[in-house]
Amino acid sequence: MERFSERKNELLPTHFYNIKADLAEQPKPPLHPGTGEPLDPAALEAIFPKGFIAQETSRERFLPIPAAVLAAYAQYRPTPLVYAGELRKALGTPAHIFYKYEGVSPMGSHKLNTALMQAYLASQEGVRELVTETGAGQWGSALAYAGERFGVGVRVFMVRASFRQKPGRRILMTLSGGRVEESPGPNTEAGLAYYRRDPDHPGSLGIAIAEAVETVMKNPASKYALGSVLDAVLLHQSVIGLEAEKQLAGQGLEPDTVIGCVGGGSNFAGLGFPFLRRRLREKKMTNFIAVEPEACPSLTGGDLRYDHGDSAGLTPLLYMHTLGKEFIPPPIHAGGLRYHGMAPLVSHLASRGLVRAVAYGQDKVFAAARTFFASEGILPAPESAHAVAAVIDEARRAREENREQVILFNLSGHGFLDLAAYEK
Amino acid sequence: MERFSERKNELLPTHFYNIKADLAEQPKPPLHPGTGEPLDPAALEAIFPKGFIAQETSRERFLPIPAAVLAAYAQYRPTPLVYAGELRKALGTPAHIFYKYEGVSPMGSHKLNTALMQAYLASQEGVRELVTETGAGQWGSALAYAGERFGVGVRVFMVRASFRQKPGRRILMTLSGGRVEESPGPNTEAGLAYYRRDPDHPGSLGIAIAEAVETVMKNPASKYALGSVLDAVLLHQSVIGLEAEKQLAGQGLEPDTVIGCVGGGSNFAGLGFPFLRRRLREKKMTNFIAVEPEACPSLTGGDLRYDHGDSAGLTPLLYMHTLGKEFIPPPIHAGGLRYHGMAPLVSHLASRGLVRAVAYGQDKVFAAARTFFASEGILPAPESAHAVAAVIDEARRAREENREQVILFNLSGHGFLDLAAYEK
Repeated sequence: MERFSERKNELLPTHFYNIKADLAEQPKPPLHPGTGEPLDPAALEAIFPKGFIAQETSRERFLPIPAAVLAAYAQYRPTPLVYAGELRKALGTPAHIFYKYEGVSPMGSHKLNTALMQAYLASQEGVRELVTETGAGQWGSALAYAGERFGVGVRVFMVRASFRQKPGRRILMTLSGGRVEESPGPNTEAGLAYYRRDPDHPGSLGIAIAEAVETVMKNPASKYALGSVLDAVLLHQSVIGLEAEKQLAGQGLEPDTVIGCVGGGSNFAGLGFPFLRRRLREKKMTNFIAVEPEACPSLTGGDLRYDHGDSAGLTPLLYMHTLGKEFIPPPIHAGGLRYHGMAPLVSHLASRGLVRAVAYGQDKVFAAARTFFASEGILPAPESAHAVAAVIDEARRAREENREQVILFNLSGHGFLDLAAYEK
Repeated sequence: MERFSERKNELLPTHFYNIKADLAEQPKPPLHPGTGEPLDPAALEAIFPKGFIAQETSRERFLPIPAAVLAAYAQYRPTPLVYAGELRKALGTPAHIFYKYEGVSPMGSHKLNTALMQAYLASQEGVRELVTETGAGQWGSALAYAGERFGVGVRVFMVRASFRQKPGRRILMTLSGGRVEESPGPNTEAGLAYYRRDPDHPGSLGIAIAEAVETVMKNPASKYALGSVLDAVLLHQSVIGLEAEKQLAGQGLEPDTVIGCVGGGSNFAGLGFPFLRRRLREKKMTNFIAVEPEACPSLTGGDLRYDHGDSAGLTPLLYMHTLGKEFIPPPIHAGGLRYHGMAPLVSHLASRGLVRAVAYGQDKVFAAARTFFASEGILPAPESAHAVAAVIDEARRAREENREQVILFNLSGHGFLDLAAYEK
């Protein structure tokens, strides 16, 4: 009966898709934080596993997914592509709405796709501990789970606002053997600068990244893992869009509009980039909408320029849309979207008009989540609810214009661990 | 593109399975609480919708599922049948373990199967409000969701121990428009008796049922809904086993052992009864194991006799395994299993040796949940974790005896809303 020990599925991609292979013009390169010169990839080896750097800098169109990672994916992938028929009825729209539901992953969000890959790469190089930051805890819990799976310890600096609002994901991290600390905290110079001024400082992803990177730089047996922003992370998330493409094609369909929320950008890019490929290569006129919170509007309110990924200026300078590395976003519930910057690749595509950015306020987002919950029976994570809000606007526009378009969006996670936010 | 508005699946059953059609000897009938005489079904009309009573008393083998309920099921059913290959590896067992995963339902547990059916039946008879009780909140949140879907108000008496331990599900009920009250509370005579003595009384399902039934008896526009125990509820849950039977048969398999946890009994019966049918009719030697908590051992520690379903003695007398209607279970985390009685049908089958009952302590159950989480990536609800503990014991026994048996169990819900319990 060995055939049951492997669950294969032809929908599961065997390779990641690298959008850089299809860009005529490449984004500006990262710069060394000290010299301001283009970064030698070797300089990253103090921070990242070598295998990760190789993916980060690759221009190959398709990069193979290692067998061990594929086996781990096969426990929850392919994720369902769901037709939102009840939402359609509730909105009275002629649009056909599909969502790719990443909430079925063990940790309830898309973050596990890159967490497994990063933990695997670290395990191959004998890394003892992966250090990271987390906002709402989706990324931290995913990395803790992946670390346990591949035998790598995980230490997480969790943004204080989320640490206190969302005990559930903190407990999940601990259940997977992860070490969790409130950020900013007293154990790093980067954290101490804020912690001394205010031990209740709500924190930000930028500060937590600085704490994690500083920790790694002081400890050679540790490496750093980032849950979004970087090219390699967006690459790992391409499994979402690659699956969705096959799933839609199985019904003879292509999307007219692709929607995802953006914090660091990997959620949107994961679904969108495989479809952007067709826009870049075949000039298909698909619309791409990246949805961010009004409270942290890096694409719609930030500048496109070089900036650090962390608040302390330890990381390389990335050419991206940014609100400034000192920006402290208000403690909105979509903790995963509280980041001052935006993935350089998403920034690049937005600046060229290939991706349209919109920003929504928290009230509108929660109302959209309720509409979705009442019709489709899934309570979205507050991050994903931003995408839902944009979907509803697009579906209403389709009704006004009587257009039978196909809308595809990334329901990147469920909200079972965010109920306290919904209560407020 | 209308084909997308209905997602059909040949695995989805069109009928419920009624085990009473296959019992040579019927369980003893319910008795009137006042007279002690066998109950006239018409006497139940003050409490239940007529359509529900018809199902409760039917001896038909297969009862059709109404189209509107089927459409609601189709939003999350068929639920996956998963091969637990990683758990198998972790245990080093030759046994093949499959779980039917009901946690994919909108509310994260199997309870929605009967909630939708009961809310639909109430809506057909113009019921304004369904009143119920809930332990851990799985049932209450399922009924609130189902009520919103079919336009029936829902009022829930929630056992205080769970109300305080599990705010998440209380919030979910409110999001679906349900009214939630702590039980025992001051708004009913049944509740007041306990509330006066101790406003922090942890409560029990028996007390909460009494509060709900009393409320319904005082208000003709209300009807009562129960989440387990009754024959009709077990009937509705048969969709779980009917699907699993087809899913296993698709792989050329039958289970040697079927395992489910028992509180009121519907979780176990939902998976088990369609397979028990074959044992009853074709004399197949399948093993059936019902797992209960040591702290509330109605099957392994209770008597088989007539008893009330509630603490106040308002409900009909049911012939069942019971710890006595006055029994107040300790506030264990598996709130859904804190019930003094057991479904008459499960009691009947257990007393005839067709179902074997076992009881596990909380520590063993949580350890099993952690093993399952680390290997299969799903954190079980504390209730379902009881089944996991028994599965692990069976799988280890199979290893000792080197038997390649097929074990099937009901993973009736996920534990995302029970993380506080896991922390303790």
